[in-house]
This record gives sequence, structure tokens and C-alpha cells, in this order.
Amino acid sequence: MRKLLSSLCVLAACSAAAKEQPHNIIMVIADGMGPAYTTGYRYYNDDPSTKAVESTIFDKYLVGMSSTYPAPVSGYVTDSAAGATALSAGVKTYNGAIGMDVNKQPVESVLERAKHYGMKTGAVVTSQVNHATPASYLAHNEYRRNYNEIADSYVDDRIKGKIKFDVLFGGGWQYFIRDDRQLVEELTSKGVQYIDTYQQLSDLHNKQPALGLFADVGLPHALDDTDRHRLSTMTKAATNLLANQDKGYFLLVEASQIDWAGHSNDISAAMAEMDDLAKTIEYLEGYVSKHPNTTVILTADHSTGGLTLAAQGEYKWQPDVLKKQLHSPGHIAKLLLEKSFSKQQADELFNLALTQAEYDALLKAKVDAEQKLIAYEQLSKEEQGKARMPNTSRLVAKIIKKLLDTRSNTGWTSGGHTAIDVPVIALGKYAEKFAGHQDNTQIAKKVFKLLDKYNKSSK
Amino acid sequence: MRKLLSSLCVLAACSAAAKEQPHNIIMVIADGMGPAYTTGYRYYNDDPSTKAVESTIFDKYLVGMSSTYPAPVSGYVTDSAAGATALSAGVKTYNGAIGMDVNKQPVESVLERAKHYGMKTGAVVTSQVNHATPASYLAHNEYRRNYNEIADSYVDDRIKGKIKFDVLFGGGWQYFIRDDRQLVEELTSKGVQYIDTYQQLSDLHNKQPALGLFADVGLPHALDDTDRHRLSTMTKAATNLLANQDKGYFLLVEASQIDWAGHSNDISAAMAEMDDLAKTIEYLEGYVSKHPNTTVILTADHSTGGLTLAAQGEYKWQPDVLKKQLHSPGHIAKLLLEKSFSKQQADELFNLALTQAEYDALLKAKVDAEQKLIAYEQLSKEEQGKARMPNTSRLVAKIIKKLLDTRSNTGWTSGGHTAIDVPVIALGKYAEKFAGHQDNTQIAKKVFKLLDKYNKSSK
Repeated sequence: MRKLLSSLCVLAACSAAAKEQPHNIIMVIADGMGPAYTTGYRYYNDDPSTKAVESTIFDKYLVGMSSTYPAPVSGYVTDSAAGATALSAGVKTYNGAIGMDVNKQPVESVLERAKHYGMKTGAVVTSQVNHATPASYLAHNEYRRNYNEIADSYVDDRIKGKIKFDVLFGGGWQYFIRDDRQLVEELTSKGVQYIDTYQQLSDLHNKQPALGLFADVGLPHALDDTDRHRLSTMTKAATNLLANQDKGYFLLVEASQIDWAGHSNDISAAMAEMDDLAKTIEYLEGYVSKHPNTTVILTADHSTGGLTLAAQGEYKWQPDVLKKQLHSPGHIAKLLLEKSFSKQQADELFNLALTQAEYDALLKAKVDAEQKLIAYEQLSKEEQGKARMPNTSRLVAKIIKKLLDTRSNTGWTSGGHTAIDVPVIALGKYAEKFAGHQDNTQIAKKVFKLLDKYNKSSK
Repeated sequence: MRKLLSSLCVLAACSAAAKEQPHNIIMVIADGMGPAYTTGYRYYNDDPSTKAVESTIFDKYLVGMSSTYPAPVSGYVTDSAAGATALSAGVKTYNGAIGMDVNKQPVESVLERAKHYGMKTGAVVTSQVNHATPASYLAHNEYRRNYNEIADSYVDDRIKGKIKFDVLFGGGWQYFIRDDRQLVEELTSKGVQYIDTYQQLSDLHNKQPALGLFADVGLPHALDDTDRHRLSTMTKAATNLLANQDKGYFLLVEASQIDWAGHSNDISAAMAEMDDLAKTIEYLEGYVSKHPNTTVILTADHSTGGLTLAAQGEYKWQPDVLKKQLHSPGHIAKLLLEKSFSKQQADELFNLALTQAEYDALLKAKVDAEQKLIAYEQLSKEEQGKARMPNTSRLVAKIIKKLLDTRSNTGWTSGGHTAIDVPVIALGKYAEKFAGHQDNTQIAKKVFKLLDKYNKSSK
């Protein structure tokens, strides 16, 4: 009986504590993560020495699916700008639009609504911080490729006199440190903390706003980065900085490079990005248990590459070879081009025993690429102007990706996006509100509703 | 106030009626229906004259997703036999196994459990009735292609002295009316009603058991059948026959030919099969409202063909051309081979304005196929024995499917299956039990649990 009473007390205390805690919303967008990616990750992650296939963190919290189509003017296949604008503002728009509707009018994002309410806001991405997805939460621009304009707006376009973000982590030196404008300097002069290495993330000590730019454009591939779980690392730092704010926070987290791996039909890079995302959601699972008023929603803006887990009529998908990879195909290609590699050295580079045919194909790819470059260099300046300089590492990487596709029996149909519905995963408070099938615009509408509900007294 | 009381009375009456009604479980398997199929059907079904994209019946009742991998011995990509055995018996097995585990031991199916409990049982499929999926509910065989053995077992293998099915509709004359055994005669001599046309479905008048075989092997493609919604028609007949039984029923419904369209990378046939399935679920939605103790679960055993909605780097998927199709590519090919077709006649056959290049490609395909056949016919008998007779309509159909893929920008990576998770859709009583992510074996386990719960007094 005493035990029962004690349990009740603990429960009551927990419940009281929960009531006092601020409400946070963490929106995680896995760019390009169609259902083949979440499924593939299960088998990539499977431990073949155990009898059962291990469930993933995505399986544990799957609640539904989402449609992703853009405004009718762009057909049924969205790009990341229209996809992110649907998720950020609840509005269908044309492909390319950043936080604008089909009439090129700005539309309020959930991050902006949160800021209006006096909540803290942030974005953590592995692309440049002014790429389509974060931009659709923080900016309004008629075209996603206006990177400088979008970066400028992060400094200039304010809500209640404040810049829109309290935390912003990702890549983008080339847009924030420019000859024509020094955005980093402008921000630091206004009291923004600036860091440019992952190591400094732990030095921020609750100082906000904080800007962390860790690469010229996007961060290195997870496979090639000094920290293979840099999204998870940045997310930890951001949630630590934002936690325990009076009015809570809205944080966007984007696993940006699943999409990039999809565009380049690179299955080993895609799975490593999925692994970083999985670690991030696993971290957030623990975070939610300590901050029970936090809602975490994970979805994708679309699926990329027409990825299929099996191809060519064969009933197999064998991701074991992918899990062994120590570098991305692009990085391996660069290394292969730098010097001669013996069969044994090549095996080490791939962390597997290549067949002689595979090794020969790599050598041939290297020679072919180098010959193409020599042929280009022998052209006149005028001819060179008309032609395109062969990208030797891209040419060799293509053969490496083909090798890994063949080994794993992975299929692709496109270098672009497809229209397939994407998974919706939710945990924490009100996770059940995202259950079943929904359109991407409904996800934004539900987030707006939660923000309004949390802040109705201060509206 | 009177209105309120009257509503309450109605509710009370409804509730009492619900309690008295028997419990039914309708398991619908859409063979091969990965998430690209349910998504694609939304856009195929979309009315472009309206501003919004219409939701489908699949969207309305989506509750989760399912993994489909077979036993480790078969890797991560299942075939329909192992997939159906997982769904029918809750057991992971090797590809090819019908209602047997990896040790080739028979495993009880949910249909058999239902029959044990004295419930009525049935199966309605568009394949032959002894194909992998229905066989995994009704039979036990170490290899799916033992069609005659499987058909024989439908007559010989009984539960409590009764044949296992009360209703069985689909194709399969060649397995049930054979020189070595006349299964139809054996069954009718035992009091089974037999019909062989869709028209006779309405003549059955509550007579059971009933066997309806409507084709030699599988039924015609939905696109070519006299009844484009024959799955829906058969399902109506089966539920009418089985309704209002003392102990309720278990019914398997299989949209078998989504898979077949996927194997042949035939997007117009696939979408027409999806349309028949949608009509079936729409009918079952109405049925459930009248028989609220009925649970309907819809899922797939796997996805087929590596279908992707967009390809070749283009951000578009244009199903309007598919919706216009009046015949399957195979049927059009046969017609094209029968006689000469003017451009206008070909346009009528495709129900669209072909480009001159498309028309020329069709004429070339026809000539090429005919020449291949002539070359074959000119071989000696011995050479013919070694070669394979060219299938002219298949050769021409390949070009037609390519034309429709190009028009719609559809991608495929395989003539086989892939490992992607599949949608889970549920309506009616206990639909919520199938929410979230689950393994295919868990679906069977949940159905067993419901059957046990309904019949615990009679166990």
C-alpha cells in the first residue's frame, strides 16, 4: 500500500512538473526520405547475427503518412522549396517558392508565429542554413536559388525588432562572409554568438542568439565528416541552448543530405545520413522523456532518386556492403585519382574484398576519366569554352556507386524527386494528432494550432 | 428534448443490434501494392477540374505500415507465398512456402482457426483460387507452384469433416477440371454450389458452400474484363452470402493482379486494378456501417516492380493518359497485330492523340515482332526446339508500356519484388489495433487474437 501511495505521489509530482514546463515543438524534416529510405535503414541497421530483424526508432514512432504534391501549377511532384513551404506555412505553392504562395505573396511560417508569441526559435541543418528547407521557415523569396538575398533577410527581416532565430547551425560561410556584405560581423555586432567548429558547440553555455556555420556550403557527407553524427551533435547543442525557456521554443531540424545522396543515387551516403538522423531521433526520444511537453514530428518533404530496395528482377537487397563503407564514393574517387592503388589497397579503401572484375572496372574508370581530362586539356581555349571540363572524381564516383548498387542490388529511376507519400513519425506530447494519412499542409496547420493553444493567453 | 431522447433511443437500439451481430473479419490483400501504388492512385483518381486533389478511400483509413521481409534464409525481399504465410499464420518462412514454416511443417492459418471455431470462411481473388495468397490461407504445401496438389487439398484437407471454404471465387478451371481429377464434380456432388459466370453470382441466394470459377487461370485484367470492378462484384456477392451467420465469418479478399501488372511493369493495368480495389474498399466501408462488428484490414504482401512516380530527373508524373486507357497494353498489342491500323484508328485504340513518332514506333514494333516470328518459323524443327518462339504480342506490348511510361513519366527498376514497407489500412471494429508500424506476422497475430476473443466461450 505504501508502495502504491508512493507511486501515486511520484506520478502526481511528475504531472505537476509537466504542467510547469514550457511547450516545445521540434519539427524534423528528413529531406528526400521516402518510405524506401526508412525501410532500407531497417535492413542496413539489422544485426545479421541475431535471429530477428531489429526495429528502428522510425518504426517505433511511425504514426502515418503524408502526401507531398505542390500547387497544381507544378503538377504532382514537389521540389524542396514548395515541400518545405507546405510544411512551414500550410500553403501549397509552386516549385521554387520560399515561404511564398502561388501569387508570390509571403505566407507566415510556424517559426515566425512562434517568434511572434515570444517563443525561442532555431534551425539545425546539414545543408547551408539558407537552403530551401530552413529558408522556408525563416524567409520569403520568390526563388530558392537567391541564396544571398535569403541570407541577407536572416539579418534584415525581423519580428518585433528581433532576428528570427535564437539558434542557427549548419553550413554557409560563402553566403554569410561575402565581399559585398559581412553578415557574420553584422550579427556578432548585435550580440549573436558565432562559432565555426563543432568543438565550440559545447562552449556556448546558454548564450543566445547563437550562429554556428561549419562549412562553406553544406556540411561534409556524414560518411566523410569528422563527426558522422553531426546532426545529432548539433541538435543536442541546440536543445540544450533552448531548453527551459519561459515560453518554450520551436526548433527545425533538417537531415538535408538524405536528399543530396538521393539526387546523386548514392546509397552508401544515403544510409549514413539515415544513421545520423536515427541517432538524432534516439536523442530526442530521451529528451522528450525529460521534457514531456515537447512534441517531435519527423517527416520528409518528398522522396528522392526513385530509390528501390532490389532491382533487375532479383529478390534480394544486401545492405551489408553499405554498412562497411568508411568514405563516400566521391571521397574514394578522389583518393583513387591521387595515386596508384594495389588490389589490397583498394580493398582497404572499400573495406571489403573486391572481385578482380570490380577492381579492373575501377582502374578502367580512372584511366577513362583521366583520358577525358587530357582530351579536354588538348582543346583550344575556344573549344574548351564550348565544352565542359570533365569532373574526373564525379566520373569515377559514378562507377563506384554502380559497384555498390550492384553489390547491394539497389535500384534508382531518377536524379530528381518522385511523388510517393512519405512517412510521418511523431513522439512526445500530442504525437497522436499526426496519426493516419494527412497532407503536408495539414502538418503545418496542426503545428499552428498547437502554437496558438500554447500561447492563447498572450495572443 | 424529444429529438435528443429519440437520438438516444436510436443509439441504444444500434448498440444493442451491434452486440447481437456476429463478428466478421475481412482481410484484404492487395498483392504487390507498395506505397507508390496507393499514392499513384490518388493522382490517377484526381479530378483536374477541381482545385483540390481528392483524397482516396486508402487515405481515409490509412493507419500504419508493415514490414514484409521473409525468414532470414530468403533475405529481405519476400515472394507472395512467404508474404501470405506471414499474413495468414504469423510465421516467417522461406520464399515459395505455402502455409509452412522453414522446417516445412504446416502452420495454422487464421482462416483455419476461424473454421475450427465454426465460423464461415471464404476467399475472393482475381488470380486462380489456388495461387500463392489464397493457398496460404487454405492449404499447406512446400512449393507454391504445385497448383494441382494445392487445388486437390481444397477438397481433401478438411476441418471437422468440412471443406475449409464456404465461399471461393476467382479463376482456375485448368486446376479444378482436369483429366486426372474432376474437382468441380467432386465438390458439387458434396453439395457445393458451382457457378462459372459473374452473372450467376446474383443467383446463389444464400446457398453455401459456393465455388465460382470464372477463368482458366487468373481472371482477365480489370482493363480487359467484362466487369472492370469484378473484385468489387465478387466481394459484394461473398459478403452477402456470408452475412448474418451465427458465428460470423473470416473472408480473404485478394486484389491479386496489382502484382501481375507490377511484374510486367504495366502502369495502366496497375492503376485499373487499384481502381477495382478502391471500389471494393468503398463497398466495404458501407458494409461496415451496416455490420459494425466487422473488421476490415487492407495491406500488401510486398511491393512489385520498383515502381516510382516520376523518373529520368523530371519533376512530373502525369497519370491522365493512364486513366483514358480502354484496354491493357497486351490487349492493344493483340489488336494491332491482327490488322493494319491507320493513325486515327490507333488514336482510338489508345483513346488519345498519338504523336507521329509514337505511331511510327508502334508500326515498327509490329514489323519487328512479325519479322522475328518469320525468322523463327524458317528455322529447322531442331533449331526451333532450341530457340524460343517469339511472343509477338508481348514484344509489341513492351513498346506500348514504354510509350505509356514515357507519357506518364513512370519509372520501374525490376520485374520482381522490392523490400519497401507497405501501407496498412483498417476500418470497422478494432481498426485502431492495426495502427503504427508493425511486422506482417503481427497482423496475423492480431487477427488470431480477435478470433480467439470472439470465440473464447466455444473454444
